[in-house]
Amino acid sequence: MSNAKALPLIETDVTPCCPPLDERPLTPEEAERTAVMFKALGDPVRLRLFSQIASHAGGEACVCDISDVGVSQPTVSHHLKKLREAGLLTSERRGTWVYYRVAPSVMASIARSFSVSG
Amino acid sequence: MSNAKALPLIETDVTPCCPPLDERPLTPEEAERTAVMFKALGDPVRLRLFSQIASHAGGEACVCDISDVGVSQPTVSHHLKKLREAGLLTSERRGTWVYYRVAPSVMASIARSFSVSG
Repeated sequence: MSNAKALPLIETDVTPCCPPLDERPLTPEEAERTAVMFKALGDPVRLRLFSQIASHAGGEACVCDISDVGVSQPTVSHHLKKLREAGLLTSERRGTWVYYRVAPSVMASIARSFSVSG
Repeated sequence: MSNAKALPLIETDVTPCCPPLDERPLTPEEAERTAVMFKALGDPVRLRLFSQIASHAGGEACVCDISDVGVSQPTVSHHLKKLREAGLLTSERRGTWVYYRVAPSVMASIARSFSVSG
């Protein structure tokens, strides 16, 4: 009412992916959507970047925080962009750097896909 | 002792993949091994085949059980081979058909990778 601001809601973001993979066959649309995420993780460098960001203090990291993964910084940036486009990371520019974090619900959503259903 | 057969042990098969992705950065070796699995799942047709097999009665299926995924049967067989080579499926020939099932611990192992660590 009046000018009172709504309390911030707990983010109930859209599940980016799929039902348990052993529950029923995925529909073509679910498979298309989910394959994009797995394809992005199907590269050793991108997987290392993903785990560096996911495990970094505060749950976020910029290119400046990435320790050596054997490729140049522009290549790191390219891979981070791919992970973002696949919906796995979100990014936010703060000053000089872009900070990346694992997109909300991604971990839980993929874990759920592989949790054995009843 | 004597001729008594050892009791069958509960299969403690080797974990095919990695620690929780948000626990610490993956090593290059872990990333190589895990990326192979994600790469195999990073294709919509393979992902549909994987979920058809995982959700099939008895947890196994042969090419004869696979319902239409929009590709020819030789292509289905090719994709199943890729999933097997990635360690995601096991196969067993019985008579005319090769039966596929999800490799033991694969579901749990991938679920664990994405379960948020403490």
